[in-house]
Amino acid sequence: MKRTYAGQRCTAARALEVVGERWTLLIVRDALMGVTRFVGFRDTSGIPRNVLTARLNLLVEHEVLERVEYQRRPVRHEYRLTDKGRALGPVVSTLMEWGNEYYAADLPSPPTLVMHKDCGGRVVSQRVCESCRRTVRPVETTAVPAEWRLAEGRVE
Amino acid sequence: MKRTYAGQRCTAARALEVVGERWTLLIVRDALMGVTRFVGFRDTSGIPRNVLTARLNLLVEHEVLERVEYQRRPVRHEYRLTDKGRALGPVVSTLMEWGNEYYAADLPSPPTLVMHKDCGGRVVSQRVCESCRRTVRPVETTAVPAEWRLAEGRVE
Repeated sequence: MKRTYAGQRCTAARALEVVGERWTLLIVRDALMGVTRFVGFRDTSGIPRNVLTARLNLLVEHEVLERVEYQRRPVRHEYRLTDKGRALGPVVSTLMEWGNEYYAADLPSPPTLVMHKDCGGRVVSQRVCESCRRTVRPVETTAVPAEWRLAEGRVE
Repeated sequence: MKRTYAGQRCTAARALEVVGERWTLLIVRDALMGVTRFVGFRDTSGIPRNVLTARLNLLVEHEVLERVEYQRRPVRHEYRLTDKGRALGPVVSTLMEWGNEYYAADLPSPPTLVMHKDCGGRVVSQRVCESCRRTVRPVETTAVPAEWRLAEGRVE
């Protein structure tokens, strides 16, 4: 049974409709690291051919990837991240940071780093309070339906 | 065919082994919003009963959730986030922010907000360069295997 979340108002649920499956996020991870071609995605992740075809088509349909012809004879295509696809970078990064924290005990260092192109520095994710400007840890936050805040008159 | 990623050195792949499936992250989302009981998870997400049981067990096994008895007669349990589970907050937040950007056109406002407990301000995700301290956008970053940087002698 395939259930859909399009009817859910939660935008995380809607986002999961597109990327809520591990192969899909691994394809996005590879694209963020510069992979563009079918064989590249296949070799990097070991995704079965038929699954890879289906997931690439899904990502093109949802405008996460763009399918571009790069050769005429024979015709060959590559897959490039759109702005919407590149905007998934923070999702993959935070997931990787969680993995670095809890699933890297056997590794000498985190295997992948996110770098700042301009200066070559390492990029880390933070959560910041828009009101007091402090950096907050997960335990210091709470997620609430916007209606509750609207009812309290604290969010316009 | 079920493939596993445990052999992959990429920690995002290893993390996806636990949370790379939409129901699982929806359960974590609900737990972050305060849901603790089986019927709560079932009613909030509409997850089929047997799938929910399997996913809750997986999350307990991986110490994302902790199963705690809250009533003796009859025996009843609830599921509480561990520190490791709460550390998934940024993953759910960044996913939700992506959904807010691209899948909320029909909504008057983002349906869920992440708030700072201390001051009630809204919490947003940012990526910051550890070197130049600037906030960077996804397009300004690149993900590279740590070996490359080690070889260049730029990361110790």
